[in-house]
Amino acid sequence: MRVLGVDPGSVTTGVGVIDFEHGKARCIHLESLALKAAGSFSARLGVIFGLMDEIIAQHQPDEFAIEQIFMYRSPESSLKLAQARGVAIAAAVRRGLPVHEYMPAVVKQAVVGTGRADKLQVQHMVKRLLSLSVDPPADGADAAAVALCHCFRRTSLAGVESNEPGVEKTAMQLLAQSRYRRRSR
Amino acid sequence: MRVLGVDPGSVTTGVGVIDFEHGKARCIHLESLALKAAGSFSARLGVIFGLMDEIIAQHQPDEFAIEQIFMYRSPESSLKLAQARGVAIAAAVRRGLPVHEYMPAVVKQAVVGTGRADKLQVQHMVKRLLSLSVDPPADGADAAAVALCHCFRRTSLAGVESNEPGVEKTAMQLLAQSRYRRRSR
Repeated sequence: MRVLGVDPGSVTTGVGVIDFEHGKARCIHLESLALKAAGSFSARLGVIFGLMDEIIAQHQPDEFAIEQIFMYRSPESSLKLAQARGVAIAAAVRRGLPVHEYMPAVVKQAVVGTGRADKLQVQHMVKRLLSLSVDPPADGADAAAVALCHCFRRTSLAGVESNEPGVEKTAMQLLAQSRYRRRSR
Repeated sequence: MRVLGVDPGSVTTGVGVIDFEHGKARCIHLESLALKAAGSFSARLGVIFGLMDEIIAQHQPDEFAIEQIFMYRSPESSLKLAQARGVAIAAAVRRGLPVHEYMPAVVKQAVVGTGRADKLQVQHMVKRLLSLSVDPPADGADAAAVALCHCFRRTSLAGVESNEPGVEKTAMQLLAQSRYRRRSR
C-alpha cells in the first residue's frame, strides 16, 4: 500500500509518500515546500493544488491521509490552514484517492507512542521508522507521520477483521516486529 | 469585463458570471449547486473544484471575486466554509484568474446601498440589477452580488485613476446612470 500524507499550510506544506508492506515502511518521497515565494495567499493555494496534483501523478499513491482540523488560538491562522487543507483534499479527491482523516493526538500516539508528543519527537520517530539518514524537515515529518498513522491503523484493522490478536499496534511494536522478522529469517 | 463571483459552502455553492459594460450588468450564468448528494465533505470539496473549473472553461471570465472570510459563531462551520473557499480560489488561480476579495459589508453596501442589508434585500437587488425575470436562489444571488461589487469597484477605481468625480458609485447610482443613458440616447 502506498499512502500520501499531507501537512498543509500557507507558509510551508509538507508532503510524504510512504510504502508499507509486511509491517515495514519505506519513504518514497518527503518534501517540505516553502510557499512564501509564490506570493499572495491566493497564489499559494494554487501552488498547493499544483504540488499535490504533480506528486499524485508522479508517485501514484493508493490512499490519502491528513490530520483533522480544529480551531486554534488564532482564528486567522486557523482559517488560512483550513483553506490550504481544503485545497489539498480537493486535489486528492480529483485524482480519485480515498481520504482518511486522523486527530492530531491519534497520529502522535501511533508514531511516537504518546498523544502528547512534540514536533521533535515526531521528527525523530519518522526518521527512525523510515530509516532516513538525515533529519526530515518538520512539515515533511508531520506529513509522513499522518501517512504512517494511516498505514499502522490499516494494518491493525486488517488484524481485527481476520481475528488476529492486537487491535492497536503502535509504531514501537511494529518496529520490534520488523526487527524480529529480520532476525528470524 | 466578465467577472466570476462565488459564494462557497459545503452544503450549497453559489456561482455567478456577470458581464459589465458601460455601467450595465448582464447575467451570463447564475447557479446554486446543492452538494449534499455528492456525499462526504471531502467529496464535496472535489465537486466544488470540478464545478469551478467547468464554469471557468465554459464562460472564460476575466476576473474572480469572492467574499473575505471571518470567524463566525460556529468554529466548525467557519472551518468548513474556509476549506470550500480555499478550493474555489485554487480553481480560479489554476485557470489564471486574478482573485479579488471583498468584505461582506462592502458587497452589501455596493449592491444594496447599506452594509447591513439582509439576504432578501441582496436577492432583490441582484434580480433588479441583472434584470432577471425570476428570483435568483440565495447562494447564486450572493455569488452574483460579489461579482457585481467587483464590477462597481473596478468602475469607481477607473474613475479615480482618470480623475473623474465619484469614488464610490453604489448600485443605485449606477442604475440611475444607466437609466439616464438609456433616456438620453
